[in-house]
Amino acid sequence: MQPMNLPDLPTRERLITTAARLFRRNGYHATGLAELLTAAQVPKGSLYHHFPAGKSDLAMAAADWTAAQFMRIMDDAFVPAPDFQQGATTLCHKLAKLFDLLEAADACPISALLFDGPEGEPFRTHADVTFRRLTGHLAAHGARLGLGPQAAADQAELLVMAIQGAWTIARARRSSDLLRALPARLFLR
Amino acid sequence: MQPMNLPDLPTRERLITTAARLFRRNGYHATGLAELLTAAQVPKGSLYHHFPAGKSDLAMAAADWTAAQFMRIMDDAFVPAPDFQQGATTLCHKLAKLFDLLEAADACPISALLFDGPEGEPFRTHADVTFRRLTGHLAAHGARLGLGPQAAADQAELLVMAIQGAWTIARARRSSDLLRALPARLFLR
Repeated sequence: MQPMNLPDLPTRERLITTAARLFRRNGYHATGLAELLTAAQVPKGSLYHHFPAGKSDLAMAAADWTAAQFMRIMDDAFVPAPDFQQGATTLCHKLAKLFDLLEAADACPISALLFDGPEGEPFRTHADVTFRRLTGHLAAHGARLGLGPQAAADQAELLVMAIQGAWTIARARRSSDLLRALPARLFLR
Repeated sequence: MQPMNLPDLPTRERLITTAARLFRRNGYHATGLAELLTAAQVPKGSLYHHFPAGKSDLAMAAADWTAAQFMRIMDDAFVPAPDFQQGATTLCHKLAKLFDLLEAADACPISALLFDGPEGEPFRTHADVTFRRLTGHLAAHGARLGLGPQAAADQAELLVMAIQGAWTIARARRSSDLLRALPARLFLR
C-alpha cells in the first residue's frame, strides 16, 4: 500500500498515495498541507492544479485509491477460491498480513479517510458510495461462486462490516489475530 | 447519551459528558478547548483541577463514560433475554434507536474517542483495555445464558466487532437499518 519509489510516480499519484498514507496514520485533521507536500515532494501549485479544492479533494481521491487497492486484494483472494467462505478466509488472512506490514499503526484505510475527513454532505455521500462499491464487488464474487443474490448481498455486507470492526479493534490490540480469527467465527458455527 | 440538564450536573460530569458529545460529533482534534469549556459551562481552572493533563485526560474519561453507558445498554438488553441471540438482537435494536436519536451524525461513540484521540502508547492501551472490558461484559452475559467459555468469548468478540463496523457504515449511509439487520445476518444462517 505504500509507494516504493515515490519519485518515479507521476505527481498526481505521488499526492494521492502520500495523502492516503498520512491520513491513515495521523488522521485527516492532524495532517498539515505543508507536511503532505514535503512528503510527496510536490510543490504547492501542483496540488491545486490536480486538486482544485486542495486537501478535501485529495481526501476523496485517496479514499478512491484505497478502495481500488482493497478491491484488488479481494480479487486476489476470491478469484482462485472454490467458494465464498474460502475466499473470505483468504481475504482475512491477506488483510492480517497487510495489518502486520503496516505495523498495526494505521487506522482502517477506508474509515480513517472517510470519517476523520472534511465536514459535510459530499464527503459522507462519497463514503457511502465507496462502501457500497466495496460491498457490491464482494457480492459479485459471491454470486459468481454460487450464492443467490440476497445471500451474496447479506454475506458481502456482513463481511465488510466485520472486517471494518475487526481492523479497528485489532489496532487497539496491536495484533492481527482478530482478523485471522474472523472467518472461523463468521462461518464455523 | 446526552445530558438533559447540564447545569445540574457536577463540574466533572459536565466536562465528561460534553467532551464525549463533542469528540463523537466533531472528532478529538477538531474540538477546541475553548469550545468545550463554553459548551460545558466550566471555567478553564476547573478543567485542570479535575483533569491535570487537560484534553487528553478528558478523552480517556470520556471513553470510560461512554463504555459505562454502553455496558448499561448491554445489561438492559441481556438481563431479560432468554438466550444470547435474543439478547444480541435486542442490543442491536437499542443501538439502532440510539443511532437514530443521534441523527446518524455521530461516529461510533467508542472509536471516535479512541482513534482520533491523542497520540501514543497510553491512549492506545486505554482503547485496548476498554474494548476488552466491553467484550468481557458481553461474554459474561453469554456465559450466564448458557454458552461455554470459548463460545461466549467468540460470540462476544464477534458481536462487538460487527457492531463497531455496522455503526461506521451506518453512519456513511445515514441509516440504522444495518444495525437492525445485524442479528439475522450473524445468527440465522
